[in-house]
Amino acid sequence: MSRCPFSTRRGFLGASGGALAAPLLTKAGKAAVPGMTAAPASDMSDGGAIPFFGKHQAGIATPQQTHLVFASFDIIAQSQSDLVRLLQDWTQAAAIMAAGDLVEPADGNASKPPTDSGTVRGLGPGRLTLTFGFGPGLFEKDGKDRYGLAAKRPAALVDLPRFNGDQLEPAYTGGDLCIQACADDSAVAFHAIRQLAHMAAPNDAADGYGGKKAGATLAYNAKPGVATLRWLQTGFLPDYPAGETPRNLFGFKDGTENPGRPDPAEISHGKTIGNGSLGEAVWVGNEGPVWMQGGSYLVVRRIRMALQHWDNTALDFQESIFGRKKVSGGPLTGGGEFTPLNLDATDADGNPVIAENSHVRLGAASTNDGARILRRAYSYNDGLKMIAERWPPWRQGLEYEAGLIFVAFQRDPRTGFIKIFDRMSKFDMMNQFTTHTGSAIFACPSGIAKGGFIGADLFT
Amino acid sequence: MSRCPFSTRRGFLGASGGALAAPLLTKAGKAAVPGMTAAPASDMSDGGAIPFFGKHQAGIATPQQTHLVFASFDIIAQSQSDLVRLLQDWTQAAAIMAAGDLVEPADGNASKPPTDSGTVRGLGPGRLTLTFGFGPGLFEKDGKDRYGLAAKRPAALVDLPRFNGDQLEPAYTGGDLCIQACADDSAVAFHAIRQLAHMAAPNDAADGYGGKKAGATLAYNAKPGVATLRWLQTGFLPDYPAGETPRNLFGFKDGTENPGRPDPAEISHGKTIGNGSLGEAVWVGNEGPVWMQGGSYLVVRRIRMALQHWDNTALDFQESIFGRKKVSGGPLTGGGEFTPLNLDATDADGNPVIAENSHVRLGAASTNDGARILRRAYSYNDGLKMIAERWPPWRQGLEYEAGLIFVAFQRDPRTGFIKIFDRMSKFDMMNQFTTHTGSAIFACPSGIAKGGFIGADLFT
Repeated sequence: MSRCPFSTRRGFLGASGGALAAPLLTKAGKAAVPGMTAAPASDMSDGGAIPFFGKHQAGIATPQQTHLVFASFDIIAQSQSDLVRLLQDWTQAAAIMAAGDLVEPADGNASKPPTDSGTVRGLGPGRLTLTFGFGPGLFEKDGKDRYGLAAKRPAALVDLPRFNGDQLEPAYTGGDLCIQACADDSAVAFHAIRQLAHMAAPNDAADGYGGKKAGATLAYNAKPGVATLRWLQTGFLPDYPAGETPRNLFGFKDGTENPGRPDPAEISHGKTIGNGSLGEAVWVGNEGPVWMQGGSYLVVRRIRMALQHWDNTALDFQESIFGRKKVSGGPLTGGGEFTPLNLDATDADGNPVIAENSHVRLGAASTNDGARILRRAYSYNDGLKMIAERWPPWRQGLEYEAGLIFVAFQRDPRTGFIKIFDRMSKFDMMNQFTTHTGSAIFACPSGIAKGGFIGADLFT
Repeated sequence: MSRCPFSTRRGFLGASGGALAAPLLTKAGKAAVPGMTAAPASDMSDGGAIPFFGKHQAGIATPQQTHLVFASFDIIAQSQSDLVRLLQDWTQAAAIMAAGDLVEPADGNASKPPTDSGTVRGLGPGRLTLTFGFGPGLFEKDGKDRYGLAAKRPAALVDLPRFNGDQLEPAYTGGDLCIQACADDSAVAFHAIRQLAHMAAPNDAADGYGGKKAGATLAYNAKPGVATLRWLQTGFLPDYPAGETPRNLFGFKDGTENPGRPDPAEISHGKTIGNGSLGEAVWVGNEGPVWMQGGSYLVVRRIRMALQHWDNTALDFQESIFGRKKVSGGPLTGGGEFTPLNLDATDADGNPVIAENSHVRLGAASTNDGARILRRAYSYNDGLKMIAERWPPWRQGLEYEAGLIFVAFQRDPRTGFIKIFDRMSKFDMMNQFTTHTGSAIFACPSGIAKGGFIGADLFT
């Protein structure tokens, strides 16, 4: 079938200026036919492509890919219209890349910088999803309503409070915009972020080498740019078969309690997670502004895990902390991974089998007035770092700068992550082994219709 | 076929002490049968396992996997015999993990720390290779012959000179020991490094939580440990089909000129690179000590690449720098990727078509007295960093902390990497876009026979 990812390229070209008047080439070098309608038969059509357009943004209910590149941006646009042009061009480029194509014009003028870095030339889509979110700074920053949007800030897009134990580093915190890139190939995810960041960046390269000036690129290249990267974080998951809950760096299964999780026997690679309870827990409904209906709020936390300390901790204590068995993932009260917790069960001494300060009890919907969030976390491994732990045995020295990029989607963070984590941050036994070093919150707008663009309804 | 990875477990158990007297379990939970001989029929037997034992260490001629975790260690052993015990136990654990199994005893005493972190429980071998190397500090450090090995230091294991432009950071430089872990799953590679580091580390965890003391683990756990992590670096490659040369973050193919490269049409996933010219270029011969014969010298360089700058550079200048076409990988003098360079060709003005200071000319065997090295490089992406570039346009600010983990194997670094890079570091046009921030050299001993251990002949 056609690789042409959208039916309205001409419309986009109009919005983007003339830089793309030449036909786009697919990776295979075939010219895509303008005006052709892409009609994917299923999530798995087109060699592992996840549809970019739809009711919801991809990358939320999509079963997790094995690699993450999370990018947070500062917006530096001088006007709302510049920002809108970027979002239109990002939409176009994201759809092209999700279909497995490169973002490059057919003319390939060798005296200009390539429109696309070409680092994944010849690769397939790799189940790439690009999920866009708006941070508080889009609406108001340093007390300024930079883009005339302050009145449109949703009540649910709160500033996250300071939680107990937070040791947030500015280098991994905040942002006015985010893009979550996920793919089954780390190079594909990074390529996409790099391409989108390049389109948004100031273009100050009066490149003297060879006497070449930086030329027009796809989309927005006017100085001084629209957005610059603020922080960037890679993540990964072990490549388990579809439907199996992946293990985190503590060796435990992570995500068993996710809402909307279909029967593992039914899930198939690339198939969207069933909508069972997602409507209640994840998708914004009529209570939100139109541009957020069908969208979701993203909370990201960079959580360092004291792996050396953990590896010297007894298995039964590890399991007490989680409240689950390590190998099976089943509750300490018995059964398999998906057996419900029995929070009332006590041992011979009358103590709860699943401890009061265990991770699973503190996170359970039943102890949080029914609050549920969709976890979409990745492990990260950034090498070593000099670290002074804040818990016994108070290790100091080179330790793993590794842990969890916790990503959670929810309908309302006030009754989602904040509700759940406020108590966890105070009482969870696991805190002895974790330190939150990064944090941000974003409003991920509803899905994008063909011909539309990211967050279009916010700007009407 | 059997998952039991070696025939001599009892012998290893003897060397390791009694901690492993209980039978090992495979990931599937089946007890491995002591004394069984593993006899892989081919590189691809056993679900993607690369044989650990053999004439050469795996991970050198092995076609590149998609993920790298490179670990450098400082040795802190108090005696040569402690070090030897670690190498014996590392050998045992590496063979188990390369076969796709976890390193854990069958009894699984819950009151002790798990022997294996279990982060990849249930996953296959993922083509895991573990390649071990000895750095200069094993033989002599701070003027001290700590382990009675100074006289055995090979002449070829030189200290790398300071090269033009080096901006080496101690956090990514040097080391007494290294392990290169490569796999098609990033979690599998990190799991292996973490396991081996855990076995070597000081065990000071008098873990007060739950009143548990850290118990016996597989292999060496006596205080104060044998080796500690010095630096750790992840890397990745785009997942190209077997036989295709991967592209680096500049978007160019990387490794076209590798020695021993078979016809791309012949290479198959998991199949060892043909031995054609490897004997000359890569494997140490009779000129080296017995323990290095069939081994190779590893040079690793962490090379930051100015991606933002590169992305604003004209395509024809990018190609002039490389001396090759970006899309095809063919020389600027014509032909496809594997067409030989024509270094004598000139353009209408009499200038060389492949410039004097182009990367490919300066790296070519024919301009280096025939010197060749086996490149086994990975891209890396460590997020963003405040950077002041040392070339025009002298950018300062947040840039990608991303680039290349250059790994090269060679028979003799004096006539390999040092010979080639000394000139490149001065003249290569690409230096305008690259900065070397990490560096180390290691002697990777010959392959390990069943019943032997890493570098055994060094200690006889």
